[in-house]
Amino acid sequence: MAQVIDSAAAGHAALLDGRYGDGAADAALHLDQAGTIRRLLEHRSVRAFDSAPLDEAIVDTLVAAAQSASTSSNLQSWSVVVVRDQAHKSAAATLAGDQQFIRDAPVFLIFVADWARGAAIARGRDEASEGIGFLDSTLVATIDAAIAAQNAIVAAEALGLGAVFVGAVRNHPGELSALLDLPDAAFPVVGVALGWPRADDRSQVKPRLPQVVVRHDERYRAGVPQDLEGYDRTLRRFNESQGRAGGWLDAVVARVRSASALHGRERLRAILSSRGLSSS
Amino acid sequence: MAQVIDSAAAGHAALLDGRYGDGAADAALHLDQAGTIRRLLEHRSVRAFDSAPLDEAIVDTLVAAAQSASTSSNLQSWSVVVVRDQAHKSAAATLAGDQQFIRDAPVFLIFVADWARGAAIARGRDEASEGIGFLDSTLVATIDAAIAAQNAIVAAEALGLGAVFVGAVRNHPGELSALLDLPDAAFPVVGVALGWPRADDRSQVKPRLPQVVVRHDERYRAGVPQDLEGYDRTLRRFNESQGRAGGWLDAVVARVRSASALHGRERLRAILSSRGLSSS
Repeated sequence: MAQVIDSAAAGHAALLDGRYGDGAADAALHLDQAGTIRRLLEHRSVRAFDSAPLDEAIVDTLVAAAQSASTSSNLQSWSVVVVRDQAHKSAAATLAGDQQFIRDAPVFLIFVADWARGAAIARGRDEASEGIGFLDSTLVATIDAAIAAQNAIVAAEALGLGAVFVGAVRNHPGELSALLDLPDAAFPVVGVALGWPRADDRSQVKPRLPQVVVRHDERYRAGVPQDLEGYDRTLRRFNESQGRAGGWLDAVVARVRSASALHGRERLRAILSSRGLSSS
Repeated sequence: MAQVIDSAAAGHAALLDGRYGDGAADAALHLDQAGTIRRLLEHRSVRAFDSAPLDEAIVDTLVAAAQSASTSSNLQSWSVVVVRDQAHKSAAATLAGDQQFIRDAPVFLIFVADWARGAAIARGRDEASEGIGFLDSTLVATIDAAIAAQNAIVAAEALGLGAVFVGAVRNHPGELSALLDLPDAAFPVVGVALGWPRADDRSQVKPRLPQVVVRHDERYRAGVPQDLEGYDRTLRRFNESQGRAGGWLDAVVARVRSASALHGRERLRAILSSRGLSSS
């Protein structure tokens, strides 16, 4: 049975049931009074947006929240492109999986791994920038951009906005980089489509794997620690409730089987290499 | 002058001044009543930990928050290793930049990009898992792990804990993977050292680049949009207040100049390739 430490907060056990479905059996919960953790646990991806624009102050706030995330050695090796112009956003949407919800969202934030700024600073001092070409530099900037985006989403949800990550910005990174005028040593990592949820939005908290599957104490447990058929059934039921079909295991196998599920991203290494990244 | 929309919340302008130093001139702020955004903006990396242990319920909660972050196609291609045993944690600390604060922290979470679970599922069905070897799969799992870690940090700070990211878990990924029994197709992305801040903790909010530097409207601005000497001075003053020397521009140049600042991470691509990742 899901355990909740903050017993003053009645109804919080439902948080664990929503997040884990039948798999909440062995998780406890310690909630803060301000409700931040509750809000994290209630996260759901919203793809149905009202057409109402967002105040400039909100975009400022989301960028400030993004910048408040940690950044490796304070290098701040990321940027964000704020896309609001309808035609421009539609062109970006076409390249990012041709997803209508991006066109519907009043704002599409594209978080960029950005070593171009560092390279420009080095160039201004007649210094080399060989360090940028290593895979770890790509990961540093990718991680910086990703956690900045996550903070933006947490802030957006705190304001009542809905948001969804768009990994499909990496489907055509060369073309999208051209559309956004990204320089060499920069590439789109994730997009965030956001806006006020539409009145008919029916998005729900999606159940995740039981904690025991993703969590390892001291050392990684070899193999899969428990029968995953239970989670597969939980997710299948959830998908049906959302008008979709299919379970989890089939989706995993379809994704890992071959390059065919990568939607162009199998070319990412070559494209990044041509942009001065991940060549070493 | 920094603008704060939620005028009922007196003193919030200090948030922007702390986050941007002299660079807050053109940012506005829209805060939520529950204080989540305030807490995001007040983030500071804590490296001075009390020795008090953490309740199991807190670790459960942080993992639940981590799992509540978005994950690409719900693949959940990450894991977390919870390291608490003192000798084991010390060995991990030695490999992760030999940083004492990791030994002092009661808990060291190591977030792992994990395609091993997907590979095991495919293997159980006699299916191939060629898709794992592409660079984009490494990025998918890295982003999943990073945003999960960020949610864990947001949750930890909501409970009054202090935390710091440890990118140095990638300094010796082969050795650390061996220490943690990580299988092929898994590697450590970031660590999070956390605990109750020590009474003498003096960590402060670190000023970031002005928004205008990292934020681009519609398209990326070529070059550096403004004189960065101002930020360099702001950060130099901040560093001096923390008993450290140096500004920002020198640090950026030192990092990008050559492989020598990568502390072993220049070997990451070869190591990941030997683990079945990023070879294509």
